[in-house]
Amino acid sequence: MQTELSKQLGVEYAVFGFTPFPAVAAAISRAGGFGVLGAVRYTAPDDLARDLDWMQEHVDGLPYGLDVVMPAKKAEAPGGQALTEADVEAMIPAGHRQFVEETLAKHGVPGLAEGEASGWRITGWMEQVARGQLDVAFDYPIKLLANALGSPPADVIERAHEQGVLVAALAGSARHARKHADAGIDIVVAQGYEAGGHTGEIASMVLTPEAVEAVAPLPVLAAGGIGSGEQVAAALALGAQGVWLGSVWLTTTEADLHSSALTRKLLAAGSGDTVRSRALTGKPARQLRTEWTDAWDDPAGPGTLPMPLQGLLVAEAVSRIQKYEVEPLLGTPVGQIVGRMNSERSVQAVFDDLTRGFERAVERLNRIAGRA
Amino acid sequence: MQTELSKQLGVEYAVFGFTPFPAVAAAISRAGGFGVLGAVRYTAPDDLARDLDWMQEHVDGLPYGLDVVMPAKKAEAPGGQALTEADVEAMIPAGHRQFVEETLAKHGVPGLAEGEASGWRITGWMEQVARGQLDVAFDYPIKLLANALGSPPADVIERAHEQGVLVAALAGSARHARKHADAGIDIVVAQGYEAGGHTGEIASMVLTPEAVEAVAPLPVLAAGGIGSGEQVAAALALGAQGVWLGSVWLTTTEADLHSSALTRKLLAAGSGDTVRSRALTGKPARQLRTEWTDAWDDPAGPGTLPMPLQGLLVAEAVSRIQKYEVEPLLGTPVGQIVGRMNSERSVQAVFDDLTRGFERAVERLNRIAGRA
Repeated sequence: MQTELSKQLGVEYAVFGFTPFPAVAAAISRAGGFGVLGAVRYTAPDDLARDLDWMQEHVDGLPYGLDVVMPAKKAEAPGGQALTEADVEAMIPAGHRQFVEETLAKHGVPGLAEGEASGWRITGWMEQVARGQLDVAFDYPIKLLANALGSPPADVIERAHEQGVLVAALAGSARHARKHADAGIDIVVAQGYEAGGHTGEIASMVLTPEAVEAVAPLPVLAAGGIGSGEQVAAALALGAQGVWLGSVWLTTTEADLHSSALTRKLLAAGSGDTVRSRALTGKPARQLRTEWTDAWDDPAGPGTLPMPLQGLLVAEAVSRIQKYEVEPLLGTPVGQIVGRMNSERSVQAVFDDLTRGFERAVERLNRIAGRA
Repeated sequence: MQTELSKQLGVEYAVFGFTPFPAVAAAISRAGGFGVLGAVRYTAPDDLARDLDWMQEHVDGLPYGLDVVMPAKKAEAPGGQALTEADVEAMIPAGHRQFVEETLAKHGVPGLAEGEASGWRITGWMEQVARGQLDVAFDYPIKLLANALGSPPADVIERAHEQGVLVAALAGSARHARKHADAGIDIVVAQGYEAGGHTGEIASMVLTPEAVEAVAPLPVLAAGGIGSGEQVAAALALGAQGVWLGSVWLTTTEADLHSSALTRKLLAAGSGDTVRSRALTGKPARQLRTEWTDAWDDPAGPGTLPMPLQGLLVAEAVSRIQKYEVEPLLGTPVGQIVGRMNSERSVQAVFDDLTRGFERAVERLNRIAGRA
């Protein structure tokens, strides 16, 4: 399964695996794919350095990359200074804080212990946090830097290119893809409607070829709805130079969700059990539908706040829901492919299925085309 | 491009074309595909007979089919009698009628002339109307009967099978697909989120393989997001035995939209210019986003009524908007593939592109698989 891009990056399969877990990212690279470690949860640079050290020891010299969530535009106070987390916290209305507490109380969710930090934060979207991550990451031989929130700033693209690091950016429309190409990035990740996490309205079947046409000859990776080798073949038939898989790793044996209840929910969920909701970050992101997302999407409620306020507003609540495994509220970003995630498998087993399914699909197409 | 199903039906390409226009349906069959005439607009059986006579003269003896919109459950009054159109009309709140008139008045839409009938009606969903269509259709050598609204009633399936007619039903989820299979239909049309018309939440990339697995060995046709040969290859890679295309024919030279303004809007629209709205029928249907759909989807408005009330409520208004070509309000059901419908082409030219694109995609996959 070789495309120009997989050859350029020196990987066996044109399968890019995005994951927040170093053990999964390393296993993806070892299995012949390209592991991409999500950095958003690393608010402390030392934590990222520790996990990248671990990656270095476990990828057997194979290539891997990093995914950050870096806004192209700085969040600025009216005076022009960069906004701090405290500035943003101060912008959250009291009524919204009250709604969070009421919703948690309705389900009897305990508070965190005194002095216990909220484990779940998405402050990685703040430019200063993402820059701290990059200062660490550029000390490691990463081969790809992906940004989930628009094109990275020009100086970041330049720094990456100086170090021989390819830059990828996620796009939910052909227009966004073109903007990224104009900004000088190297790879577009076309994120279809069915994908987990932040996503637009255009489904992969339509978006992938539109993005390919919009940025040619730049390579496009198809993201959204892909978890089998047949789906890999479909995405490559649409002109992608590879696929970008995120959801499917969540139920691998190497993943550590810190919650067996959440793993059970993922294994049981059907493709119709996700929702594209602003509940988590303030921008539409596909995730498991839960009573938590329902509360935020309920027209009778206060509704969500814009990014970055919503993410800060719910950070502690999400940590509490996760810590106490409050099942009706417990969710995670995941795509519609969750319906096919029905057993815990190793990353290697996922790759075996992907490559066998891809071969089957190509054989089938050859028979249909009268070439068998 | 031959699958077991295309061989069974005796067509050259596994491409099924759904269209309300006899000239388009006949051209699809002549081009080597399988033309399916949409019957919903034929409220008078004689009109359908006239157009099927025309089809017979223009398909060169090649196979074709009919698509009806037949509810599996009868709409019944509390006493158990079938509801008439007048019964349903009487259930529409006055406030909704007023909203229709106000919205039309805001855009200066003239009324119809005294005695001028509303040309656009979707009473084909009423079982008695659909049964009248079937009484006509079974006198013609149709090879396929498709139902857009669930499985057809058991006696209709039986009658079709007695006449050697295959029965297809549209499904937006694997669960619906299984229900159809249990009801005894022969083919499932898996209608993805990106499709025009009534559609669910699951995108084709995910829905197609789910439906294939759910009803195997019954054949599945993939619908939604398909307008190029690369997309045909993708759908077949996902396990479909053929593709079901609807939107792409709207801008063919054989189509007769009765409105050059609407054709211009379709040619100009991007993939992001559609919306899944209840404005037209009361069930979510993808269509061009217009100020008309915006008015119905506006939380400040009265909202839509359930099917079948909404369709009757807006029937005359839609006719007036179409007759007077009131551009801001003028729309039509169409899928996200509208973004690639950028020139008027003959049906034959569409087929030439589909088959060439399919061959290109298969060659590309063979190269990627190292088989070239």
